[in-house]
Amino acid sequence: MTEHTVRAFDEDLAFLTGRIQAMGALAERMVSSATEALIDRNVDLAQRVIADDPELDKLQREIEDFAIATIARRQPFAGDLREVVVALRITSDLERVGDLAKNIAKRTVEITPLYRLPRPVMGLQQMGDFATEQLRKVMDAYRTRTTAAAEEVWESDGELDAMEDSVFRDLLTFMMEEPRNIAFCPHLLFCAKNFERIGDHATNIAENVYYRVLGQNLPLERPRSAATPA
Amino acid sequence: MTEHTVRAFDEDLAFLTGRIQAMGALAERMVSSATEALIDRNVDLAQRVIADDPELDKLQREIEDFAIATIARRQPFAGDLREVVVALRITSDLERVGDLAKNIAKRTVEITPLYRLPRPVMGLQQMGDFATEQLRKVMDAYRTRTTAAAEEVWESDGELDAMEDSVFRDLLTFMMEEPRNIAFCPHLLFCAKNFERIGDHATNIAENVYYRVLGQNLPLERPRSAATPA
Repeated sequence: MTEHTVRAFDEDLAFLTGRIQAMGALAERMVSSATEALIDRNVDLAQRVIADDPELDKLQREIEDFAIATIARRQPFAGDLREVVVALRITSDLERVGDLAKNIAKRTVEITPLYRLPRPVMGLQQMGDFATEQLRKVMDAYRTRTTAAAEEVWESDGELDAMEDSVFRDLLTFMMEEPRNIAFCPHLLFCAKNFERIGDHATNIAENVYYRVLGQNLPLERPRSAATPA
Repeated sequence: MTEHTVRAFDEDLAFLTGRIQAMGALAERMVSSATEALIDRNVDLAQRVIADDPELDKLQREIEDFAIATIARRQPFAGDLREVVVALRITSDLERVGDLAKNIAKRTVEITPLYRLPRPVMGLQQMGDFATEQLRKVMDAYRTRTTAAAEEVWESDGELDAMEDSVFRDLLTFMMEEPRNIAFCPHLLFCAKNFERIGDHATNIAENVYYRVLGQNLPLERPRSAATPA
């Protein structure tokens, strides 16, 4: 492989990494805005999250196409190939994160007219903030290639599961106390589940940061609170 | 590229395709068993679905590792590279299908003691059967490289969304009628959502079959009933 080819691959890789960071920043903003919109009953902000999603999908397609073209053009192997494979995987997780944030935003639009602020909403805010933070940390770990930060994200995922259990129980109680709450509480259950899933995607990304840097996988079993059937 | 190299790639590809078919068959069985376990309140069968999941995860790792090694070893491009990329994507969708089936099975274990057969269960059976069938059809399309069958799966996804809306409404009514149903109905809401998500993964696979055969993407917007916030 010539010096010229090496530099060409590095340029491709820098472009790819930059696009993934842009995608991560957009996904993170969607999650934090979706949280804010849900808690503050801000339908306009929710609509903006929904409107952001096609941009995220476009970024994913662009990254995928570029990654595949890079493999075809540069024929990378070992660590170089790993970089591209990791890019493909992370872009797919970020696309899902955006879908989940969009789903929370759509539910916010739907339930805001029905909604009387229940206790469990505080738990939802906590979940949304935590998920946003996990995403921020893991994309930071991706940027700086820091496995310790990735492992930290991976290990904290159980906290989000525990929050979900608590929100879930509160919402069930809330529905049992007052049947009218059944009109919107199931949507809040799904919002809680979506935040928990966003955390799972942050965990997947953490696994990929680890694999990217060290060339090996984290152990198969991820930390998970025993109580959640997920 | 020598004749020998070409044949070596074809052998790798045949192995990869075979493993994906095995993975598809296992995922399909998990979905159909999870449906049966939920409807028949069969906790033993649900436990078997849960026990199947590590096997599916193992297959995914194996397929991923083999696909990446194939790219490194054979340096495929154009249609050959597409085959490997599609394999990577489909294995990831099938892994998620298994997770969703496992989640339904875990909920079945949890709610079976609380459960009195509600009307909406028929809708859930319909959803489970439909999702299983979508998966069977799309893996068939993968095996036979038939884009028409893949497009059919892609186009039918809206039916599953409509079923979910109907199950969702029935379950809300069921909870409003009788607060004790709130103990298990939310789990059934998530089961419905999971079946709907399994359909989405079948749709993703359909897109990949299309891309594999024709080298181009289906249009970005997938059919979706307007009513579902997903």
